[in-house]
Amino acid sequence: MARARSEERRAEIVRAALEVIAERGYRGASLGAVAERVGLTQQGLLHYFPTKEALLVAVLEERDRWDTSGGRDRERWRLDLMESLVEYNAMRPGIVQTFSALLGESVTEDHPARAFFTERYTQVRENMAEVLRAEFGDELPGGLTPERVAPLLTAVMDGLQYQWLLDPDAVDMGASFRDFLALLREDSKRSA
Amino acid sequence: MARARSEERRAEIVRAALEVIAERGYRGASLGAVAERVGLTQQGLLHYFPTKEALLVAVLEERDRWDTSGGRDRERWRLDLMESLVEYNAMRPGIVQTFSALLGESVTEDHPARAFFTERYTQVRENMAEVLRAEFGDELPGGLTPERVAPLLTAVMDGLQYQWLLDPDAVDMGASFRDFLALLREDSKRSA
Repeated sequence: MARARSEERRAEIVRAALEVIAERGYRGASLGAVAERVGLTQQGLLHYFPTKEALLVAVLEERDRWDTSGGRDRERWRLDLMESLVEYNAMRPGIVQTFSALLGESVTEDHPARAFFTERYTQVRENMAEVLRAEFGDELPGGLTPERVAPLLTAVMDGLQYQWLLDPDAVDMGASFRDFLALLREDSKRSA
Repeated sequence: MARARSEERRAEIVRAALEVIAERGYRGASLGAVAERVGLTQQGLLHYFPTKEALLVAVLEERDRWDTSGGRDRERWRLDLMESLVEYNAMRPGIVQTFSALLGESVTEDHPARAFFTERYTQVRENMAEVLRAEFGDELPGGLTPERVAPLLTAVMDGLQYQWLLDPDAVDMGASFRDFLALLREDSKRSA
């Protein structure tokens, strides 16, 4: 019982953090602001999440779970749904900013979010390869395999987020992502 | 004269910072460590660079100048030279880590490096579009223009850096970048 309550409390804190991020962005999402929203002292919050980084990783894990809900149902992981996901991300700059800022920090020495991102990318590349194989078979344009295109697809999504966050008027994330898919579809168009 | 000496001193500090970054990485590159190397007190260093971010931006500007030396000579900006640049970057993780960490920070509110990155990307996208036009003409695979491929090329380089920094054994930056170029060359291969 105590454990179930504790899990519920953690989930409540993560939802509150997501709200604070959406309203105030990455820097405004202090442990104090999140604690206040759930009616805890900052000391009380630290019992659930010892650092801001730990809380933000929990928020990103929750987002991943949510974005891929029904994720075990392979049908959900399709390229057209990824297109929608990129469009959806363009409407929630707070969480994209949090992801991008934490990813940046994570490549520094001994950062607490490093393990999360390293494991996440291993998984994401695998998922992307499956999506690509389901859509294009074993051979993509340029003679590439799904496994070789997977890191590129991932890189495009992440890289576009930085350009878009810095200059939303100059970069249309959704349109650019579709442009990348057009490069991948080149082959099928030609053989059609 | 005083001004020339000051410029020279700044350049010396930037070179020292680059060395410290190469040896100790982003987090280890403290103002104190850089000051010590050039025989200044930390207070003395602050006279030239008021914050760590200002110093790191100067380092990245210097790297950009160096990487594109002879940059006015358009011949230098060719895709095969960019391939070499990616391979070269794979041998200097310290500066790539510094770039990637600072890019991550820059998307947060009012960050001192935000203007640098925003202007840099505007310029980089323009340069990339020129490179692509010189190599492929006005139409690339997928019916895309050089201007539409430019943000993708940029995104791929940045995104691959994060994946590589997190897991260098799983991601070969140089090979993946060449894979992306293979997607762009698809068209010319077919018409050949």
